[in-house]
Amino acid sequence: MNKGRLFIISGPSGSGKDTILAEVFKKMPELKFSISTITRPMRKGEIEGEKYHFTTNDIFEKMLEKGELLEHNLFVGNYYGTPKAPVENAINNGDDIIVEVDVNGAAQIREKVDDSVSVFILPPSLEVLKERLTKRDTDSVEAVKKRLECALCEINRADEYDYVVVNNEIPDAVNDVISIIKSDRLRIDRNIKLINEISNK
Amino acid sequence: MNKGRLFIISGPSGSGKDTILAEVFKKMPELKFSISTITRPMRKGEIEGEKYHFTTNDIFEKMLEKGELLEHNLFVGNYYGTPKAPVENAINNGDDIIVEVDVNGAAQIREKVDDSVSVFILPPSLEVLKERLTKRDTDSVEAVKKRLECALCEINRADEYDYVVVNNEIPDAVNDVISIIKSDRLRIDRNIKLINEISNK
Repeated sequence: MNKGRLFIISGPSGSGKDTILAEVFKKMPELKFSISTITRPMRKGEIEGEKYHFTTNDIFEKMLEKGELLEHNLFVGNYYGTPKAPVENAINNGDDIIVEVDVNGAAQIREKVDDSVSVFILPPSLEVLKERLTKRDTDSVEAVKKRLECALCEINRADEYDYVVVNNEIPDAVNDVISIIKSDRLRIDRNIKLINEISNK
Repeated sequence: MNKGRLFIISGPSGSGKDTILAEVFKKMPELKFSISTITRPMRKGEIEGEKYHFTTNDIFEKMLEKGELLEHNLFVGNYYGTPKAPVENAINNGDDIIVEVDVNGAAQIREKVDDSVSVFILPPSLEVLKERLTKRDTDSVEAVKKRLECALCEINRADEYDYVVVNNEIPDAVNDVISIIKSDRLRIDRNIKLINEISNK
C-alpha cells in the first residue's frame, strides 16, 4: 500500500482558508481532516469530535509528556494541539490528511514529519485583507488592527511553505489546492510500488 | 519577474507520451517546447524548426565544445541534443518549457538544471505496452521485442523522476500532466515576489 500525505494548510485570518477548505472537502470527500484537541470550554453549537476534541489541561499535559502531539500551543491558559495518532493512521492507510494550523504549528509539524507538504493561503492584497476583516462588524477597530498586524506577521513567514495559493476568487483558489493535492499523488515516492508492478519486478 | 520551469518529460516507446503532450499543448498554449538539434538527414514531411533543428556533425561538435547543449547523444553516427539557450531564455522570461527526452537525456539535464521537474509517462502494464507496440504493423516481431526490452530498461529508471503519470486513459493522463504543471506554478520558489508585494515589503 502506498502511503498517504500530510498536508499542512495555513493562512491568516481573513485569507478565506476555511471557506476554501470546506469546498475542497466537498470535492474530495476521500480527504481526511485532522481534528484538534483543545482544552478551552465548549462553545454553544460546538459538537465533540466535529471540529475539536475537548479535553482537560491535565489530560492534555499527559499527552504532551507521552509525545502524543505533532504540535501544540498554550493560549490564555488553554491548550490547542494536533494529535499524532490519527495523522499517522491516515498516512499508513494511504489516505491524505489535512491539518489546519498557524505558522508556528506548521513549523512544529515540519520538524516531526519531514515529508509533509505545506500550503499557505494568501489574500490578494493587504487592502483586501483589511476590507475582509473590517466587514466582520463584531470586531472593534482596535481588534481589526491587531488582526491585521498578526496577518502581516504570518504572511512574512509564507516562505517557509512549499506552496502558496492566492485567494482572489474562491473557485480558483479551491482548484489550486485540489491541483496541489492531486499532483502530489503522482510524486515518485508515492508510486514506487506501481512502477515495480508495471515492470513486473 | 518570476522564473519559469523546465519540465522534462520521458516515457518509453508505446507509452503514449507524444499523444499526451500534443493534448497538453492544445490546452496550455502558453507552454514552450524545446526543439532538439539533430544531425540525421531530414525526412519527408519534416520541416526545419518544427520539431527539430537540422544541422551538421561539425556544427554540432562545435556546440558541444562551447557547452551550448543541455544533453546530447550520438546514435548511428548522428547527434541528437537539447540546446541550452532557448531553455534558459524561456525560464528567464517566466515561461514554462517542456523538454522531451529519454532517461539518459533526462539524467544529463538534471545535472545541469537543478530545479527542473521531471515526469515519467508509464504504460498501464507491460501487456498493454506490448499490445500497443505490436499494433504498429510496420515493425517486425524482432523489432517489437527489442523495443519492449528498451521500454523495460527505461521503466526501471522511472524512480529517477519527480512524478509518474500512468497512461491508462489519454484524457486522465493529460489532466495529470496539466495538474503537475499548474501546481508547480504555486510553488514557493516561484512566488517570492508575490509574497513580498502582498506584504508590501
